[in-house]
Amino acid sequence: MTKKEVIVREEILGTNKKVAAEIREKLGSAGVLTVNLLSSPGSGKTTLLERIVEALRPDHPLAVIEGDIETERDADRIRRKGVPAWQITTGGACHLEAKMVGKLIPEVPSGTEFLFIENVGNLVCPASYDLGENLRCVLLSAPEGDDKPKKYPKAFAGADCLIITKSDLFPYLPFDQEKAEEEALEINPRLRVFITSALKGKGVAELVEYLIERRAELVGSKRHA
Amino acid sequence: MTKKEVIVREEILGTNKKVAAEIREKLGSAGVLTVNLLSSPGSGKTTLLERIVEALRPDHPLAVIEGDIETERDADRIRRKGVPAWQITTGGACHLEAKMVGKLIPEVPSGTEFLFIENVGNLVCPASYDLGENLRCVLLSAPEGDDKPKKYPKAFAGADCLIITKSDLFPYLPFDQEKAEEEALEINPRLRVFITSALKGKGVAELVEYLIERRAELVGSKRHA
Repeated sequence: MTKKEVIVREEILGTNKKVAAEIREKLGSAGVLTVNLLSSPGSGKTTLLERIVEALRPDHPLAVIEGDIETERDADRIRRKGVPAWQITTGGACHLEAKMVGKLIPEVPSGTEFLFIENVGNLVCPASYDLGENLRCVLLSAPEGDDKPKKYPKAFAGADCLIITKSDLFPYLPFDQEKAEEEALEINPRLRVFITSALKGKGVAELVEYLIERRAELVGSKRHA
Repeated sequence: MTKKEVIVREEILGTNKKVAAEIREKLGSAGVLTVNLLSSPGSGKTTLLERIVEALRPDHPLAVIEGDIETERDADRIRRKGVPAWQITTGGACHLEAKMVGKLIPEVPSGTEFLFIENVGNLVCPASYDLGENLRCVLLSAPEGDDKPKKYPKAFAGADCLIITKSDLFPYLPFDQEKAEEEALEINPRLRVFITSALKGKGVAELVEYLIERRAELVGSKRHA
């Protein structure tokens, strides 16, 4: 990168960090746990979200922000489940930024317990942008291969949990689950790992339980603050 | 984007275009067909390249440039096939640029007929960067889903051929091959489509035949120039 590029990038990241901190404060105080879902295109973010929505509703009100380069498709899928969802189409940009999310915060209904943000499908760029989330989950679909953590380390280094998706395909793939987990944990030992198949509904209950626990912690910490 | 960001980006793309044109001229005159492979992480670029290498060797000398954020893994896999391969690790950057490729051009052995450049796994950013290729191939792996072309249109709009990979997984996936092809062709009607399974060796012969034809055209056009 040229010096000018580095300066512009630092400015962008600095502003982003500030806006993200404001979002985290605002939503946290309102009792909303915010989750940033990050992965390659097609690793199953929206299908997993559909299963999470089914498991959380109606006891736990939630809302969803969908990020995509183009199309309203993902938000439409979530809306069909009766959940408020907003689509951000970046029109070419390769990641969401906090300011895009910030504009939608006033729309989040009072009483919402969880806000999920599905990032643009990209295992590289979104890793650099804090969106004000409390929890960052990186998805790795089994067909992508067990060698991805070390090839795309930043996405794994900055996450709180790793969700291996499409486990129903394990029998048909040269995918070594242990190797994938080991590589990811070498990069980031504090990763909580979940093995899921959204198509078969496997592993979703454990993940949802974890999310409910994390929200209870957040609400508890705000009460004592 | 801010005005400053737009200006910096335009400068980068302008310089990139110039360097790419020089690469295309230099390699084309030497009879090298250059192919830029672009896709999401884990859609099977390296495995497909291994099959292409096996099909082209020893009659058609080739070389490979591998792009990745981190690790030499992909270049190692190609070198094991007895083919010259260079790894560019971008150290965080989300795409290859022409200047990175340009530095390696003097290393390409005389008599090389094909140079494959495997881009960083990313269906967004690499689409904006001409690397001096004659042919751009976008890969879409079946497990990524049939809805990807319209969600990531630029990658498909700028390609010459679409390679649907991992067709061996068709029986286990909710993937509509016709829909994927139709969407891609709506964005770019001149796309040549190939259906492949590198694991089962399917569709590779047709693709290699197409590459050999494209090179014959290139060499013919240079002879008449």
